[in-house]
Amino acid sequence: MTAIEAGVVYLVGAGPGDPGLLTVRATQLLEAADIVLHDKLPGEEIIAGIPAARREDVGKRAGGEWTPQEYTNHRMIELARAGKAVVRLKGGDPFVFGRGGEEMEALAAAEVPFEVIPGVSSAVAAPALAGIPVTHRDHASAVTVVTGHEDPTKPSGSVDWQHLARTDATLVILMGVGKLDEYAPLLLTGGRPGSTPTAFIERAGWPEMRVITTTLEDAVAIRDAESISPPAVIVIGSVAAIRSAVQRWGIRL
Amino acid sequence: MTAIEAGVVYLVGAGPGDPGLLTVRATQLLEAADIVLHDKLPGEEIIAGIPAARREDVGKRAGGEWTPQEYTNHRMIELARAGKAVVRLKGGDPFVFGRGGEEMEALAAAEVPFEVIPGVSSAVAAPALAGIPVTHRDHASAVTVVTGHEDPTKPSGSVDWQHLARTDATLVILMGVGKLDEYAPLLLTGGRPGSTPTAFIERAGWPEMRVITTTLEDAVAIRDAESISPPAVIVIGSVAAIRSAVQRWGIRL
Repeated sequence: MTAIEAGVVYLVGAGPGDPGLLTVRATQLLEAADIVLHDKLPGEEIIAGIPAARREDVGKRAGGEWTPQEYTNHRMIELARAGKAVVRLKGGDPFVFGRGGEEMEALAAAEVPFEVIPGVSSAVAAPALAGIPVTHRDHASAVTVVTGHEDPTKPSGSVDWQHLARTDATLVILMGVGKLDEYAPLLLTGGRPGSTPTAFIERAGWPEMRVITTTLEDAVAIRDAESISPPAVIVIGSVAAIRSAVQRWGIRL
Repeated sequence: MTAIEAGVVYLVGAGPGDPGLLTVRATQLLEAADIVLHDKLPGEEIIAGIPAARREDVGKRAGGEWTPQEYTNHRMIELARAGKAVVRLKGGDPFVFGRGGEEMEALAAAEVPFEVIPGVSSAVAAPALAGIPVTHRDHASAVTVVTGHEDPTKPSGSVDWQHLARTDATLVILMGVGKLDEYAPLLLTGGRPGSTPTAFIERAGWPEMRVITTTLEDAVAIRDAESISPPAVIVIGSVAAIRSAVQRWGIRL
């Protein structure tokens, strides 16, 4: 186990939000860092565990608007060059739709040493905490993780939903609550049966976690009726039906 | 944080092998368990950290042959019914090709209470530890995780490799070293360019970790020339080229 070093940026995955799902190494780095740069995604429990004097919210600026990625990159580099041991704390795993890849590239381009500490990805952990295995030899021989909230600067439709419809892979959709109206019909016309089991896992790993199961054809209506709101993970595939078969014997299910 | 309970089985992900990538909760459960059932996948460092009197290798029997899954299921249930607090320790995350789903179903069918503790999946962590983000908005809007070592009792070809070839999704293949000869040609004829960056990450998170990058068309030859052996994770997609761009500034890359 390497100790923390001055002038280095640690890109650290915080996991889904339960402090018990931080890695040992993440916990050590959070305790030893000169400064922790974070946004809201690691969740209140984890952020509250870091002394206020050693953390800085780069997710929002004073005016309330979102911070551009460039500001976060600039701040990491500036602090490391000033000799600080910097933790950049990201929700889930830094490299699963976390823009951690871009942050790593910015550090390398600025010649700032960095280390990546993987975390428990919400793409796997949210279903697991709901009693849903994303792969299962009787159900799905692959799992595809996509974002439902595409980068608006990309040409529209860069996720090929109709292509994703034509496999038995479990689909795990992150940041996909808001645009479900747009892609659920594409999955249906692409060939996924309307009866495909579908689960919403809201605030996985947080004290107020909630799980709602339905089918693909009813998913939009259920989202609206239940007021499901971000952050939530959506699982589409026959594995989502396993929850109800095991729920009675699962602790905290 | 719930304390450990007698008569309960905890399905715990051990992460890729570095004890620092165990979760805090996994560490607590390993310390408090009456008995830990494990196989070789969590890696020697983690297994050696559990006192020998409190662990049992269910991966192999005395004769040297592999233990059937039924034996593991039976042993978990038997110990829980005897009032033990049982940890079933799995490599990576229990639900990513770990047969954890089947173990959970067996526990529920036997009316044994269980809890799932997600872990850092090697599917994400192995690439991350090699400096490869599995998603990146300039490269891949999805990531698909498959096993290269299909259940032999399933009809052959249940992973549709030609279908997987026709997306820009990053492909992460677990347990795929041995059968690379079989599926690499399917990816090529399916439409993935021969020049697609490809990385082998051998023993990720273990002290002897090794990373080798190549292209899809050269992958089989490189595997043989370098004697790449399991456990190894294979990444196919343009993200695999990011490693070389950042490697100089990455600690332990």
